[in-house]
Amino acid sequence: MRFGRIATPEGMAFCVVEGEGDDALCRQIEGTPFTEPKFTGKEWKLGDVRLLAPMLPSKIVAIGRNYADHVAEVFQKSAEHLPPTLFLKPPTAVIGPGAAIKIPDFATKVEFEGELALVIGKPCKNVKAEDWKQVVLGFTIINDVSSRDLQFADGQWARAKGIDTFAPVGPWIETDLESIDTSNLPIKAHLTHEGKTETKQDSNSNQMIMNLGEIIEFITASMTLLPGDIICTGSPAGTAAMFPGDFIEIEIPGIGKLGNPVERA
Amino acid sequence: MRFGRIATPEGMAFCVVEGEGDDALCRQIEGTPFTEPKFTGKEWKLGDVRLLAPMLPSKIVAIGRNYADHVAEVFQKSAEHLPPTLFLKPPTAVIGPGAAIKIPDFATKVEFEGELALVIGKPCKNVKAEDWKQVVLGFTIINDVSSRDLQFADGQWARAKGIDTFAPVGPWIETDLESIDTSNLPIKAHLTHEGKTETKQDSNSNQMIMNLGEIIEFITASMTLLPGDIICTGSPAGTAAMFPGDFIEIEIPGIGKLGNPVERA
Repeated sequence: MRFGRIATPEGMAFCVVEGEGDDALCRQIEGTPFTEPKFTGKEWKLGDVRLLAPMLPSKIVAIGRNYADHVAEVFQKSAEHLPPTLFLKPPTAVIGPGAAIKIPDFATKVEFEGELALVIGKPCKNVKAEDWKQVVLGFTIINDVSSRDLQFADGQWARAKGIDTFAPVGPWIETDLESIDTSNLPIKAHLTHEGKTETKQDSNSNQMIMNLGEIIEFITASMTLLPGDIICTGSPAGTAAMFPGDFIEIEIPGIGKLGNPVERA
Repeated sequence: MRFGRIATPEGMAFCVVEGEGDDALCRQIEGTPFTEPKFTGKEWKLGDVRLLAPMLPSKIVAIGRNYADHVAEVFQKSAEHLPPTLFLKPPTAVIGPGAAIKIPDFATKVEFEGELALVIGKPCKNVKAEDWKQVVLGFTIINDVSSRDLQFADGQWARAKGIDTFAPVGPWIETDLESIDTSNLPIKAHLTHEGKTETKQDSNSNQMIMNLGEIIEFITASMTLLPGDIICTGSPAGTAAMFPGDFIEIEIPGIGKLGNPVERA
């Protein structure tokens, strides 16, 4: 099932998205996606509403250096010497599909990072790797936008990755955890610059160092996760700089596409 | 005015705390401290209720390396070479006065860091340094508990400083911003270990590298701050390891004392 959050003429609502393309149907539900959905009877065509970020998390926990190929390109060291590490992105960085990534003057070398994200479904702590599906509501896509210059100048990544609009999330939450083979999942990023579209990231989740279960076990050994929290599972290689006027689209088969224009803040 | 949050026999409530000691009066207010308080008429003696963390923030933004003396002791470099940097602590780390700091096995060399904290009063972005008082609801105390070993092993500080219970906050929010000279404010930490109490931190906010206005300007150039968000202004020198069985008390004159026992998780 696909849960989305939409702006309608009547306000914000969670919905189930059925079908494909602009004719897909958004069927409004009562409350939140954390319980069995009750339909209100209100429906809109996807083309007639605006998708928002599918969830407003209480926290975004991300794993850095989780793809060997990305470690090599960004950190210029082998992943053996730089193990995965946790960092946090602030909830205020979240935007939805189609909203603009806004780059302030002081954030230079701003790159996209297309990533598979998990949305947490229930409060949890000390989860064993093999039990990860019990605490995950579904999959979505995040673009972990990062100012590479600030990242290395600051040492800590909170500012480089925490600027308002630097966390596009969407287009929705796919809750059928069996519908996707997360051990072999293509992850692509298509960058449109000066009218020309190039596929910059073209990798696969089989490049992950820690798998999804290991990530959940690692995080929940330290931190309680709450419903709606978003886990970023790491970026594969191929990240590249974006500039005002560009359009960046992250694509993960079985989930969908997350596209955002880039503007000057 | 002092705003606290308390657990009463009837549930959780915000209150105004008047007077000193266990006889101080907790006068319950309607809603939250972000508007002019309306008293419900219910009152308790402070000694008869339990103080909770005075605020549950949507994010905790902290400034690291903001006291030259602390930079020297922890990073063994001069502050000139390591400028202040931003990091985030997750809301799930927050506990209130008297609640136990729980140390898991894998978190070694766990140290206290007593700090002046700001509670944000209104949504804000791009605040000028001289306008910081317009967006701050009040002052409180935070203990930025940190596993020094994890901090350096991980590189990123999110895990070392983000473990559940690693953010004691309290005892309340002092909203009279003029009542405290934040340019010359003593900050002390008293550690009780094996029955013996020693004052380990004994510094002053006059050691800050970035002052409060500069911190707010620096953060809000990147991130929108929301009501209730907590800003940690950095730890002075004197941090030291804590062990299960210890009791750690942070003291800032004009605000109060924040004391927490230490346990094995």
